[in-house]
Amino acid sequence: MRTEKTLSFQTEALIRQTIRTTLHNKMKSLDEAPGSEIIRENNNREQESQSETSHNKSPLLADPWKPCRRSRATVKEWLLKLRCCLGAVCGIEWYGYAALGVFTAILSFLMDLSVTKLLTAHRGLYMKLEGNSLLQFFCWTLYPACLCAVASSFSHNICPFSTGSGIPEVRTMLAGFKMPHYLSLTNMSTKFLGLICTLAAGSTVFLGKVGPFVHLSTIIGAYLSNLCNLIQANNKEKAGGEMLVVAAAVGVASCFGAPITGVLFSVEVMCSHFALRHYYPCFFSAACGALTFRLFSMWSGDEESPQALFKTNFPAAVPFYSLEILLFAFLGLLCGAVSCCYLACHRWMLQFTKTNPMFNKMLTTEKGLYSGIVAFLLASLTFPHSFGQYMASKHTMKQLLTSLLDSRQWSSQSHNASLHLGPEALLEWSSSGSPVFLPLAVFLLMKMWMLVLACTLPLPAGYFMPVFVYGAALGRFLGEGVAYMYVSSTGLTSGLQWASINPGGYALAGAAAFSGAVTHTLSPALLAVELTGQFSHAVPVLIATLLANALARSGHRPSFYDALSIGKRLPYLPSLKKACPRLPSTPVGQVLAAILVKLQKAAGPVEVKLAVNTSTDSQIPVVDSHESQIILGFVLRAELLMFLRHCESEALEKHLDEVCCIHPTSVLLSPHNTVQEAHSILRLVGAQTLFVADRGRLLGLITWPEMKRILEDLSKEI
Amino acid sequence: MRTEKTLSFQTEALIRQTIRTTLHNKMKSLDEAPGSEIIRENNNREQESQSETSHNKSPLLADPWKPCRRSRATVKEWLLKLRCCLGAVCGIEWYGYAALGVFTAILSFLMDLSVTKLLTAHRGLYMKLEGNSLLQFFCWTLYPACLCAVASSFSHNICPFSTGSGIPEVRTMLAGFKMPHYLSLTNMSTKFLGLICTLAAGSTVFLGKVGPFVHLSTIIGAYLSNLCNLIQANNKEKAGGEMLVVAAAVGVASCFGAPITGVLFSVEVMCSHFALRHYYPCFFSAACGALTFRLFSMWSGDEESPQALFKTNFPAAVPFYSLEILLFAFLGLLCGAVSCCYLACHRWMLQFTKTNPMFNKMLTTEKGLYSGIVAFLLASLTFPHSFGQYMASKHTMKQLLTSLLDSRQWSSQSHNASLHLGPEALLEWSSSGSPVFLPLAVFLLMKMWMLVLACTLPLPAGYFMPVFVYGAALGRFLGEGVAYMYVSSTGLTSGLQWASINPGGYALAGAAAFSGAVTHTLSPALLAVELTGQFSHAVPVLIATLLANALARSGHRPSFYDALSIGKRLPYLPSLKKACPRLPSTPVGQVLAAILVKLQKAAGPVEVKLAVNTSTDSQIPVVDSHESQIILGFVLRAELLMFLRHCESEALEKHLDEVCCIHPTSVLLSPHNTVQEAHSILRLVGAQTLFVADRGRLLGLITWPEMKRILEDLSKEI
Repeated sequence: MRTEKTLSFQTEALIRQTIRTTLHNKMKSLDEAPGSEIIRENNNREQESQSETSHNKSPLLADPWKPCRRSRATVKEWLLKLRCCLGAVCGIEWYGYAALGVFTAILSFLMDLSVTKLLTAHRGLYMKLEGNSLLQFFCWTLYPACLCAVASSFSHNICPFSTGSGIPEVRTMLAGFKMPHYLSLTNMSTKFLGLICTLAAGSTVFLGKVGPFVHLSTIIGAYLSNLCNLIQANNKEKAGGEMLVVAAAVGVASCFGAPITGVLFSVEVMCSHFALRHYYPCFFSAACGALTFRLFSMWSGDEESPQALFKTNFPAAVPFYSLEILLFAFLGLLCGAVSCCYLACHRWMLQFTKTNPMFNKMLTTEKGLYSGIVAFLLASLTFPHSFGQYMASKHTMKQLLTSLLDSRQWSSQSHNASLHLGPEALLEWSSSGSPVFLPLAVFLLMKMWMLVLACTLPLPAGYFMPVFVYGAALGRFLGEGVAYMYVSSTGLTSGLQWASINPGGYALAGAAAFSGAVTHTLSPALLAVELTGQFSHAVPVLIATLLANALARSGHRPSFYDALSIGKRLPYLPSLKKACPRLPSTPVGQVLAAILVKLQKAAGPVEVKLAVNTSTDSQIPVVDSHESQIILGFVLRAELLMFLRHCESEALEKHLDEVCCIHPTSVLLSPHNTVQEAHSILRLVGAQTLFVADRGRLLGLITWPEMKRILEDLSKEI
Repeated sequence: MRTEKTLSFQTEALIRQTIRTTLHNKMKSLDEAPGSEIIRENNNREQESQSETSHNKSPLLADPWKPCRRSRATVKEWLLKLRCCLGAVCGIEWYGYAALGVFTAILSFLMDLSVTKLLTAHRGLYMKLEGNSLLQFFCWTLYPACLCAVASSFSHNICPFSTGSGIPEVRTMLAGFKMPHYLSLTNMSTKFLGLICTLAAGSTVFLGKVGPFVHLSTIIGAYLSNLCNLIQANNKEKAGGEMLVVAAAVGVASCFGAPITGVLFSVEVMCSHFALRHYYPCFFSAACGALTFRLFSMWSGDEESPQALFKTNFPAAVPFYSLEILLFAFLGLLCGAVSCCYLACHRWMLQFTKTNPMFNKMLTTEKGLYSGIVAFLLASLTFPHSFGQYMASKHTMKQLLTSLLDSRQWSSQSHNASLHLGPEALLEWSSSGSPVFLPLAVFLLMKMWMLVLACTLPLPAGYFMPVFVYGAALGRFLGEGVAYMYVSSTGLTSGLQWASINPGGYALAGAAAFSGAVTHTLSPALLAVELTGQFSHAVPVLIATLLANALARSGHRPSFYDALSIGKRLPYLPSLKKACPRLPSTPVGQVLAAILVKLQKAAGPVEVKLAVNTSTDSQIPVVDSHESQIILGFVLRAELLMFLRHCESEALEKHLDEVCCIHPTSVLLSPHNTVQEAHSILRLVGAQTLFVADRGRLLGLITWPEMKRILEDLSKEI
């Protein structure tokens, strides 16, 4: 009996010791927490050196009750040695960034490869049926319809979060909100396979891959950051947010092999402030991704060195005359105006699919069927033997862009039979023998509403590339017009002179300007340069993009992604701001939920027990007394449990402040602070909880879930 | 008597009415102040529309007691109409951004023009003296010596703040500190003229123009923002900070005609967070600047279209083999290592000039003499008839860079007489008939310490371009070596094959990597691409720059600008952090000054009078009572004056809270917040004053001057 008691006493002492050390560690980490995001950089190196000396704390060695202990131990030892070696060169997270770039690029390359195979198969089948128009029609239409139906039902059944572009969700996560559904492995595989089907449907459905790739790389980033945290074991909460920002850059970079655009995109996608400590990791990871993508593309092709994706041959000596800059500016304004029109159609369509009962029913219950029907409709319109001959519909997206960026003038070639310079590109665009303006005009008119319709398809798809190609066609149209006018005015006699008006340059500027205007970003300007590998048109492209953006942003119109965000009711502040400009300046005090649990300084065990049972928060606020409500700080839940145990074991009636440490609050908000300020400060100080107090009296708490609730509530009023 | 009294009464009533309305307006603007930086975006459009309807409030019409009223009124009317027209298109500040770009570009162009003239004059004189070595020596040495002496004494006597690069000061201002001395017009003119002298001293002194140009554009930006504020008249405090961020981008963009680099530089130069609302203005202004600069360069030269500054002719088909990427990575590491060495020498030199009594005395009293002597020394070492023949010293900086970026291989040309492809470039580098490796090695060894010495010169000068050229030489050295080895191993027989190793590509990568490593930035990678107008080497250049940066940043070594910041004791947090890693994590409570003036809620006129006489702050904190010290908010100084007047006139003993409105504080800090957090929050919320309270009790205030004092005090302990 006595030994039993001693044993139990010893056990209890042991447990209490364990709890105390855990508590101590937790408190230590919490003391660091408020400023963690900022101080962390300093501590990095110290923590690294600590991690090298503290192998035994690693979770790799955590559970020793498993089979094959000896071999496991050997493997572990080797892993630990590897970790030491890796850690000696640089922090583990850098390997994570590199791996993120490489993995995303490999995924991107694999996707391109399989899509090309599927497209070739379709084309081969279509060619074999030459002569039988009906069979050709079915081949042309049913193949994309089936693929879209498969993509749609597959993604709907396995992971409904995988449809759409993913960029609105990524933006919301980068703004600080947790959305674990969007970062699951199921989502990744569904999105990957669904996207292959979508892209294999080809230029009839006319959808791209950028957005989903940003999403895919974000998922990879989230998993890699977990892995890095597991290996590092010390700074648990570190790499999460950082890796997501980096992943956004990598997604774009490894889609096109364009590292600098990737970083600029990441800067633009961040909510309101881009933290400079992400800058270097973004560049590093994007460079890894772009290099891997280009090397793979090189090895699969016949090139001798990594090349740009859409290499152009613009004349380098005189890329454009200085007066042409005015035309580029006009093109920018034109693109801005057309983008406003496109965005208005898109918003109307979004609204229509929600309010129209038939559409709504189809889109909620029969997604596969809907996708199949829409794809069939689109494909039958682009059938090459009917209307499609005026729309260069045999071209894939890549071929379309290449042909549009061609530096030679089409119009002169079509009415000057002696100049057959680019037969392939031109044949497709003027197969009917008509001048090139007609197919371009038909393409522009038809693709506008077809694209709006395609955007309603519930499958994983990107909406950037189609817009880019559309813009290129718009630019080409203007460019061909200018070149034609120039030729007419100077006459064909002046031989070489007119060759220097390059319609390809207009196509490039148009692509950047239109896609920039639709997404309200400037990075397409750099993307246009990086995609073609030619810097000669950088300045006019930038000017066109700036002007198009200016027009598209005027009047606080929402961008394409804003419209999606608002439609999905995502708690993304800049989008909500466009739907309701007064929203971010709502005072916090108006929307704050009543505070459920708070303790007074002199709280006894009964009050503490009640608080612990009622609340699940990790930080519980402490006030001076329930009358004065003056906020003193907060206590940790773990400490309260400790306090209860202490009181129970010693059967003493102690007050809270005699036993527990009351941690001071880091930053106090006033109820007059706006929602936007609260959001910014929450992100900046990296704290999990902000306290709102008025003249010292506690009013409420703001946590990330609370912020999400506030934004969702506010957006319901729109 | 009675009328007099009535009159005086009327006057008093009028005055009180005026005070009340002023006060009301002030209070209104103050209510907006705390979140102003964030909310402002929303209000912009509304304010614009207000400004259109409220002409009469404009300061342009403020004082009607001046001569020529009629003509003035007409001019004013026209100006107001112009303002209406301009404001109808977009906000006035956009014209400011455009003007900023254009003005800076014109300045940059004018400077290039005058420097070219001065350099040509020097060269002409030197050529005329051909045959007389002694006279040539004096011409070669005294010209730069005199120019440097003039630049030095000129800038010392007129505006001592104009010496040096200016980038450390600009960074400090962008971090939020006011430094009006550095933004005066005197400073601008002194810097401009001094810089012309420095640049005209040529490649013997080996200094550049980027840094001072960033400073110059910041000054122009500050003035333009004042002008915009004057015209807008409504949102007084608006454009200040914004225009400075934009100006940093414009400085770089209009120096090289490289808009995207400019924006990336601006992102990198920001203290810790880049606000996205600056992104679009930066691009817009940088594009205006770059376009103007290129157009002016075009018009002054014979080109037909705006071209890149250092146009290269790298082969586009196979720019490099994929295995060469490893060599580029090695080059990056080499550049990183050399940059560490260079930075160590530079820091030692900075320390030496401070501690050595002779240097110290020279640099404080005889700046002109010191500059002259050093320039004479540097020039005599580079005299072409002696040591200079091994250093290509006849080349200007521009020619040096052009020759280094040449895509043809020098080494093969020097020992293969039949291949005289680039006589001019090569002649200068191997005039002595020796192989090209000797002059390159001599150049690298000599320029290292010459550059360190030149950095001590007390005149307006940039330190980026020399480093860029030095890096190009380093890259060229490796590139020539690789090309030579490749030729040796494959033999000269395989004709065309070896031509594809392009030493110019290595020079480009080296330039970007070395300058990036010295300044701890990544934008030089993009600058290298934008300067040459060729995108083919973008990926290897980026990789080299990343690796060089990684090596240079390891071990928390300060960058070039950090060393200058620390030397000048500027309150720039990221630099101070490198000198003393614990500094930013110092709790605010430790360094807070005692609070001098606070009022209690129930303060009477006597206490208020005392407070008003003691303090000059615009916001005076109010506590519950002097015993409890619970903070309630603050009152405005203007309101206190009103309160005193009220009490005096009505001879009543009232309490503060009965008359004045106590404004709630926006964000409360705790004394446990670190200095870095306080700094970030101060910037983020755009408030002028932050209150520090512990458990509701007021401890102190943090304002920008207070923050400056704290940082300066802390940096004294280093």
